[in-house]
Amino acid sequence: MTASSREQAAAEDRACPLTPYRDLFVFGAGGPIYLDGNSLGRQPRGTAGALARVLEEWADDLVQGWDRWAGLSAAVGDRLAPLLGAAGGQVLVCDSTTVNLYKLAAAALEARPGRQVIVGDAHDFPTVRYVLQGLARQPGRRLRLVDAGPTVALGGEELSGVLAGTAAGEVALVCLSGVNYRSGAVADMAGVNDVAHRAGALVLWDLSHAAGAVPLSLDADGADMAVGCGYKYLNGGPGAPSWLYVRAARHAELASPIWGWWGQAGQFDMGPTYQPAPGVGRFLAGTPDVLGLASLDAGIAPLLQAGIPALWHKTRSLVALLAARAEELLGPLGASLASPPDPGPRGGHLAISHPHARAASYLLRQRRLVVADFRPPDVLRLAPVALYTSRVEVWDAVPHIASVLSDPAVRSAPPSSWVT
Amino acid sequence: MTASSREQAAAEDRACPLTPYRDLFVFGAGGPIYLDGNSLGRQPRGTAGALARVLEEWADDLVQGWDRWAGLSAAVGDRLAPLLGAAGGQVLVCDSTTVNLYKLAAAALEARPGRQVIVGDAHDFPTVRYVLQGLARQPGRRLRLVDAGPTVALGGEELSGVLAGTAAGEVALVCLSGVNYRSGAVADMAGVNDVAHRAGALVLWDLSHAAGAVPLSLDADGADMAVGCGYKYLNGGPGAPSWLYVRAARHAELASPIWGWWGQAGQFDMGPTYQPAPGVGRFLAGTPDVLGLASLDAGIAPLLQAGIPALWHKTRSLVALLAARAEELLGPLGASLASPPDPGPRGGHLAISHPHARAASYLLRQRRLVVADFRPPDVLRLAPVALYTSRVEVWDAVPHIASVLSDPAVRSAPPSSWVT
Repeated sequence: MTASSREQAAAEDRACPLTPYRDLFVFGAGGPIYLDGNSLGRQPRGTAGALARVLEEWADDLVQGWDRWAGLSAAVGDRLAPLLGAAGGQVLVCDSTTVNLYKLAAAALEARPGRQVIVGDAHDFPTVRYVLQGLARQPGRRLRLVDAGPTVALGGEELSGVLAGTAAGEVALVCLSGVNYRSGAVADMAGVNDVAHRAGALVLWDLSHAAGAVPLSLDADGADMAVGCGYKYLNGGPGAPSWLYVRAARHAELASPIWGWWGQAGQFDMGPTYQPAPGVGRFLAGTPDVLGLASLDAGIAPLLQAGIPALWHKTRSLVALLAARAEELLGPLGASLASPPDPGPRGGHLAISHPHARAASYLLRQRRLVVADFRPPDVLRLAPVALYTSRVEVWDAVPHIASVLSDPAVRSAPPSSWVT
Repeated sequence: MTASSREQAAAEDRACPLTPYRDLFVFGAGGPIYLDGNSLGRQPRGTAGALARVLEEWADDLVQGWDRWAGLSAAVGDRLAPLLGAAGGQVLVCDSTTVNLYKLAAAALEARPGRQVIVGDAHDFPTVRYVLQGLARQPGRRLRLVDAGPTVALGGEELSGVLAGTAAGEVALVCLSGVNYRSGAVADMAGVNDVAHRAGALVLWDLSHAAGAVPLSLDADGADMAVGCGYKYLNGGPGAPSWLYVRAARHAELASPIWGWWGQAGQFDMGPTYQPAPGVGRFLAGTPDVLGLASLDAGIAPLLQAGIPALWHKTRSLVALLAARAEELLGPLGASLASPPDPGPRGGHLAISHPHARAASYLLRQRRLVVADFRPPDVLRLAPVALYTSRVEVWDAVPHIASVLSDPAVRSAPPSSWVT
């Protein structure tokens, strides 16, 4: 099913029902092929208008704008919920992914007071590992980072093995990513939830590289908690607020460690003692970021319009094409796949391992050919995004990558902080 | 020096060097007199352009925009620093006030491991009290909320008295507000810092109602840590990011409890173990909110242009006029001052206590006369803001308040959530 010529790729683009969605985004003239929408999603055309409306409300209504804005964290959360496979009343948009990870992981530890072990993935995104390390430094607590290899997401079976190595009733929290930030490996979320629950532990998912890209069924899969970025596949813009999910059945037993006035029951009574709000609203802390909420709301609109099934269908086709082209053109140059070899457990991006990946990423950007992230130690990360990447772009990107990998300059290209 | 007629107030407005600054803000046609800039500051004319520039950068540069955006939390912090009396390299703009309070209070407790007592103010803003309550729930810890009365800010002398009632070496943290959110009482910050330090405790200031309104000298006064809102006197817009200050000499001994990748030394090495960044940057958690940073940057520009001395001079004149008018027109209707009676320890707003304050706030908004906040139990809070409130507005606002307080409808006005 994978295009075997540029013409065929172009024909598939023409026939693809998602091709018109590209027009919902701002494109400048020319520019490199953008394979980094999982780092910062493109700007929807609707964003500017959404921000202008907030400015108008602020100018006209001043503080009375809060009559409308106060409920936005929950309202945008509810609009996002279908992308997560979640019913309403369980999702909030607020704070950063790091802060939300902290709030929910700490809440889980407090809800399982006799249990001192946290299980994570040694190959998970840094902020996940760091937040867990920070929480595990409390005396008696222990963080077990499991190393199943860089291209394998922990599944129910692996977790069973890990749990067999701990005493019964020892594990409080299992915290993993739904799609690995580097390899793109997809976790067996239902399997992990099931195994963790049978051991009495809670599960927290980081879905930053999953939400908006792969099908998710948080409710059906039995997830307890999840968080994710607003600025990747959700197109919320640089530093957009993050989202969090807490299953309704868990609201009563989980509470934020950050006791803020926006998570307080009867917020404007301003009473003497903190009492968490009844629903998911208890996980708010401070005043919600209204500009960010409007921008994220505009960011998810194209996703909701297209629907995850159509997006996922195209994503798989783009990733398959990318994998086939990479094998053909980059394999002979010493590159190898650092994603799961089978398409089954692969998410929306692909990792290519090469000793000069860092310099290749630099040169690709410097020559305005392709934008793709470098991830240590040796990975070039490529994300074709179903809403706005075409098959022809994927087709064309790979020879560009080959051109820099085979260029002698790749051996002497300077490293750089952000551009790498 | 206080105007004794509307004509005199108008003449003073004409002569005032700050009057032209009003044009730096967006004003709609007509509208009520706005005395709520300490809840949500007005929108600077520069904000729309600042946001448009971020949208342009996002569209044109995509992920490479981070070359510019990555340093914004510190850069905007440095630009804000003069308003706080702080040298560079000590201020960050990030997260919400609640989250920043939590990070810094937790950091202080961890830096004073043998000490278990937190001292706060029973009349402080809810989120301050709640955050401290949350941190004090750890076994052994104790929160001592001092009640010096609703219109008195704790000073060095009162703190000495409180500390005399604790065992030596017991207090880890003193956390107070620089200007009380309700009464407007101004704290003796230097005195408190001094007394607390002599007892070996650290001091954390909430300056949400102080920054941008009253003169501050964090460096000279010996403050350890401070936080404050971006959306009040700093005009950053609804839910704008907050700021935090940590004295340079304290950076090495204080670290955030939220171990995030943006506070990590060598962030893009993505190494296995969290190591806090060397400077104030260690207090970042997740990805900075670029739209919010741009909006706050535009919000503080008029303040930096006017300078705190000129602003403070006009603020005192506005508050004095308001106090005199309130005494004359509202006193006979049963209202009394709930701010310090002397102008000396008064900040930028005034609190008027009346049994029907809640309904009065509602009616004043409903009739589009005056926007002023109600604060439980019985306070109408009035904030004339030097950058954009005129003496004539202050002059005219008070009879409007008198009109609703003497209207029989005030006894039957419905309460409401946000408008109260």
